[in-house]
Amino acid sequence: MTDDIGAFVPGPRVRIEGRAGGPLKGLTFAAKDLFDVAGTATGGGNHDWPTGRPVPVKNAWAVQTLLDAGATLIGKTITDEVSLGILGENAFDGTPVNVRAPGRVPGGSSSGSAAAVAAGLCDTALGTDTGGSVRVPSSFCGLYGIRPTHGRLDVTGMMPQAPTSDTTGWFARDAETFAKVSSVLLGEVIPAALPTKLIVAVDAFGFADADVATALQPMVKRLGSLIGNSREEIMAPQGLSVWARAQRTLQPSEAYNTFRDWLDKGNPRFAFSVARALVMGSMIAEGDRVWANLMRQEVRSRMAYLLKPGTILCLPTTPFPAPLRGQPLSVLEPLRDRITCLCAHGGLAGFPQVNLPGAVTVDDLPVGLSILGPRGSDATLVAVARAMEKVA
Amino acid sequence: MTDDIGAFVPGPRVRIEGRAGGPLKGLTFAAKDLFDVAGTATGGGNHDWPTGRPVPVKNAWAVQTLLDAGATLIGKTITDEVSLGILGENAFDGTPVNVRAPGRVPGGSSSGSAAAVAAGLCDTALGTDTGGSVRVPSSFCGLYGIRPTHGRLDVTGMMPQAPTSDTTGWFARDAETFAKVSSVLLGEVIPAALPTKLIVAVDAFGFADADVATALQPMVKRLGSLIGNSREEIMAPQGLSVWARAQRTLQPSEAYNTFRDWLDKGNPRFAFSVARALVMGSMIAEGDRVWANLMRQEVRSRMAYLLKPGTILCLPTTPFPAPLRGQPLSVLEPLRDRITCLCAHGGLAGFPQVNLPGAVTVDDLPVGLSILGPRGSDATLVAVARAMEKVA
Repeated sequence: MTDDIGAFVPGPRVRIEGRAGGPLKGLTFAAKDLFDVAGTATGGGNHDWPTGRPVPVKNAWAVQTLLDAGATLIGKTITDEVSLGILGENAFDGTPVNVRAPGRVPGGSSSGSAAAVAAGLCDTALGTDTGGSVRVPSSFCGLYGIRPTHGRLDVTGMMPQAPTSDTTGWFARDAETFAKVSSVLLGEVIPAALPTKLIVAVDAFGFADADVATALQPMVKRLGSLIGNSREEIMAPQGLSVWARAQRTLQPSEAYNTFRDWLDKGNPRFAFSVARALVMGSMIAEGDRVWANLMRQEVRSRMAYLLKPGTILCLPTTPFPAPLRGQPLSVLEPLRDRITCLCAHGGLAGFPQVNLPGAVTVDDLPVGLSILGPRGSDATLVAVARAMEKVA
Repeated sequence: MTDDIGAFVPGPRVRIEGRAGGPLKGLTFAAKDLFDVAGTATGGGNHDWPTGRPVPVKNAWAVQTLLDAGATLIGKTITDEVSLGILGENAFDGTPVNVRAPGRVPGGSSSGSAAAVAAGLCDTALGTDTGGSVRVPSSFCGLYGIRPTHGRLDVTGMMPQAPTSDTTGWFARDAETFAKVSSVLLGEVIPAALPTKLIVAVDAFGFADADVATALQPMVKRLGSLIGNSREEIMAPQGLSVWARAQRTLQPSEAYNTFRDWLDKGNPRFAFSVARALVMGSMIAEGDRVWANLMRQEVRSRMAYLLKPGTILCLPTTPFPAPLRGQPLSVLEPLRDRITCLCAHGGLAGFPQVNLPGAVTVDDLPVGLSILGPRGSDATLVAVARAMEKVA
């Protein structure tokens, strides 16, 4: 299959047939170039990352799990450099085309995986989500996407960025495929039973652009009908921007720590914005980190308080649809900061989250509605996604 | 001529014959890729710099002046990215070979120009010197090199970095060629008369590695005999490191200002170290800049006090010979900071300086002796260089 949307990493395309007879038989998938595939260098979206590193001899756990279940790997996809980026513009490898929003970014860092699934080049694709890297492209490309409970999936063979926030995630165009793949990767049957309580995060809806909140209202209503018992709550009493500040303190500082030896020895090439993020990560004061870790505890406790068993919460995945491609950093960075306000809880608290596609703004641009559940309730969120598609 | 030392920018080599019958007839030269050559994109050592910029239709003043004088341009040379670097390692284009110190850096940012002259690929070469970019490679490659009086030469068609410190400079292997080229670019006959007083900067000699100070002693003695009247003085009563601090405050902040629109709109690719320098430049506090500008005034007044008409001053150009190539940033950066302590006066005060080759350390690595004179005394310094070669 040709890749005229620039979703796959340049060079010869890797392909590995799935094991015969598994539950994902007949499905194809792509893997973000953060996942090891035996015999192929892991690029990490950066041309200097593979230098001096051995070519993997084993597939990453997530890749192997999909292959064992019968899905066929059809390529590795472009990512923001070392997964640092939320918009999906890679200065070295290009920006995958978002077929659902032409002329706009696909979202990142799992840009190529989302773009490939959205374009129908494969049925599902692996991504990673540290600060929003599956949730944001799901929203921008109109896809199902999951950030599972942090720590639940084996991350062997997945390039780290900020390990206390890193998760494996995946995309699909339809809820049935999403459920099938989720069942395999979660190692759990997708249940029939749905949650019984819905919280609508009023602060998050208020923070989104007005037309996004409007576009999501029909879905929120359907979700309310499906669950039966719905109430409004402030998700972040301390402030979404305060949560974002904690995340933007912990994640870059942890990412710098992950890459510091490589930066020192390899002096690798980066787009200015990526290097700057790493430099900023290197300069975070210990006192700020101490505060951010305390706030993280508060976020966890708030989310646990809201998300009691049987309860889910919904919020806009992103405050706006995909921005235009190729804008100046001074335009993109305030946008990125606003996105972080709606994504920070993921990295801070580690609760599972699923993006539900279906809504579009007046300009016909996709925007996603996210549902969050208690730790370990991943399969239940997938069940909600499936039920929502049935009542759509 | 083949370029097996990687001194020239990759791609087809530009060549322009010199005008017939000029004083530089028969000489060849190369130009650092910061100088415009009509019909060729100016690369600036960075693969994204040429994007969206018109290809020059005129030669830079310095290039045209050499062509008019009869020298033939034989190529454009590699530079540290956007001239930010003092060691000569370019992560995109490679590190030119220093034939005088194999396995070691050539020095930068005029790395390719110095390497090409040292290897005999051309007779002279244009460089630029903002914080040491001609002086350092002259010292590391064993060449004559000049940083002229700031503001003296026309910098039209020369890519700026920090305009209040930027100068054009050039290299040669022998003093006769150096004098011929200098006479053309300075627009002045190299005089016969020499200065009558020599100051030996004891703080600078004390700051250099002991074996460098030892290696330079015979040259200092010869220089003393040549000039006749020599005394020791502290060059920087406020501290060489304090001068360096002022330079490292003003130059990066000015460089960031030069490039900020491009960084914002183009998000260009850089080696991590170069991006970091720009990020640091963006974060310098106004109060620090105010102080650095006051210190700059003190440096100018100190240099003017020392360098009365008829007086020159000598110091080691660099505190050590060329470091090994490919070392980690954590090793190279303290070295760079020490180099700045012996180079900061150039950018801060703008007095002319010439590097005299000839000395080698016990390992046979070149190290240069610098002479500095009053503003406008450039030709006299070249005269000293010529006289020194005769008594060598």
